[in-house]
Amino acid sequence: MKLLRVGTAGAERPAALDTAGVLRDLSGIVDDVDGALLADAAALARVRDAVAGGELPVIDAGAVRVGPPVGRIGKIVCIGLNYHDHARETGAEPPAEPVVFFKAADTVVGPYDTVLVPRNSVKTDWEVELAVVIGRTARYLESAEDGLAHVGGYAVAHDVSEREFQIERGGTWDKGKNCETFNPLGPWLVTADEVPDPQALDLRLWVNGELKQNGTTAEQIFPVGEVVRYVSHFMTLYPGDVINTGTPAGVALGEPEPKPYLRSGDVVELEIEGLGRQRQEFKDA
Amino acid sequence: MKLLRVGTAGAERPAALDTAGVLRDLSGIVDDVDGALLADAAALARVRDAVAGGELPVIDAGAVRVGPPVGRIGKIVCIGLNYHDHARETGAEPPAEPVVFFKAADTVVGPYDTVLVPRNSVKTDWEVELAVVIGRTARYLESAEDGLAHVGGYAVAHDVSEREFQIERGGTWDKGKNCETFNPLGPWLVTADEVPDPQALDLRLWVNGELKQNGTTAEQIFPVGEVVRYVSHFMTLYPGDVINTGTPAGVALGEPEPKPYLRSGDVVELEIEGLGRQRQEFKDA
Repeated sequence: MKLLRVGTAGAERPAALDTAGVLRDLSGIVDDVDGALLADAAALARVRDAVAGGELPVIDAGAVRVGPPVGRIGKIVCIGLNYHDHARETGAEPPAEPVVFFKAADTVVGPYDTVLVPRNSVKTDWEVELAVVIGRTARYLESAEDGLAHVGGYAVAHDVSEREFQIERGGTWDKGKNCETFNPLGPWLVTADEVPDPQALDLRLWVNGELKQNGTTAEQIFPVGEVVRYVSHFMTLYPGDVINTGTPAGVALGEPEPKPYLRSGDVVELEIEGLGRQRQEFKDA
Repeated sequence: MKLLRVGTAGAERPAALDTAGVLRDLSGIVDDVDGALLADAAALARVRDAVAGGELPVIDAGAVRVGPPVGRIGKIVCIGLNYHDHARETGAEPPAEPVVFFKAADTVVGPYDTVLVPRNSVKTDWEVELAVVIGRTARYLESAEDGLAHVGGYAVAHDVSEREFQIERGGTWDKGKNCETFNPLGPWLVTADEVPDPQALDLRLWVNGELKQNGTTAEQIFPVGEVVRYVSHFMTLYPGDVINTGTPAGVALGEPEPKPYLRSGDVVELEIEGLGRQRQEFKDA
């Protein structure tokens, strides 16, 4: 099932894309697409039946903004250097265990919203990532299989990053990861049942039409189930929490000087097989 | 004004402590003590008048749990190594600019709630901190004075930290800062008008009755207003966001081996002048 949230920012309503690609209004059935829905099997079944029934009101997809597909996100845990090819391009050793950092939920915007290059930024970079949305509370899990069983769904995330803020300004990576609008998410939340193997997804990203990232989740050093298991030993994951699982090779940081960092006017497009496509225009903050 | 939230976890109601030290129920006047209230001068004035009027229902302070004094916290930004004496004890150079890391809002518990020592933890440490609660949206502020003007109030925070997870497990400090229950907050949110100089507050922390930290915010390398200004250039701060502004000397990490890290059964008490006192018993997760 492909779940969405459409409408003006902060006032999105729940929707689904049916098998014919028609956008259907879910606001008569559920309050929102959020952790509470993902954790509620009966509510999810109700949504599924209603979408299959074909009677839900149609929304004109051309006339609404698409918001992030998850509301009330608690926290966003990010995994750094989680692709063999990306670790190589940044000159880093593949980590012995997952590198964890955070993005605040308030950085999340819709998949087609404008992204702001921070003031005084000269190293704003792109990162296409597979986002995992937690469906069940995960705490001290024992196996990667169990980790995978706690995933509610998947989405495309753009982990926009300011490399100077992240690496050269002291402290942790968080400083370069939390600028406003730095986490476009969506367009869809695809429920986990429709993603049988999250380690076999192609990811691609273009800047101004030029293909920059062209990877596969098969290159992940720590696969999704292991990431969920591992993280659950350091913090409790709740329904509606998001994990950005890292980016493949092809970011600006990995290119020779002068590195082609993003500037106002640039357009980034990104997609993951089966999870949809994003497009953002960058502007100055 | 001293604002509180009392009741069972997740279902707290707003309250205030009046000048006679009587706990008053605010639930007839405001929904919650949160960012929306802090950003609403008219609502705050209504609360102030009602508390002064002395007609609000009395709550039996001995019969209710005290929760964290802020609801719907968005993000918790933490400043590392922000006291001259603490930087010295950890062997770190005083940072050239603030060190930033994150705690998730779901780590917040009440000031007297149990704190859980994570499984497999042998280095759980204490940190008394001055928490700043944002009252107005702060974005690219130009001066420390303006930073201070965006503070809605202050509270005691316990930035519980697992040093092995934080320092020895790869990646950023976040891994040792986000275990469940790792951010007791409160008992009160003291509105900024009642804290004329946040750089003149004494902080103290005891473990099993023994004084371990005995500092003053005068030792902060980056004072509160400067921290808010600085952070606002890397991310937008919203009403209800919290900044933990760092801890003074006296943590377990700074003691000689064998360092006295916390274990199940330990009791930590902490206080900041004018902001109240916390007490937590530690138990195994």
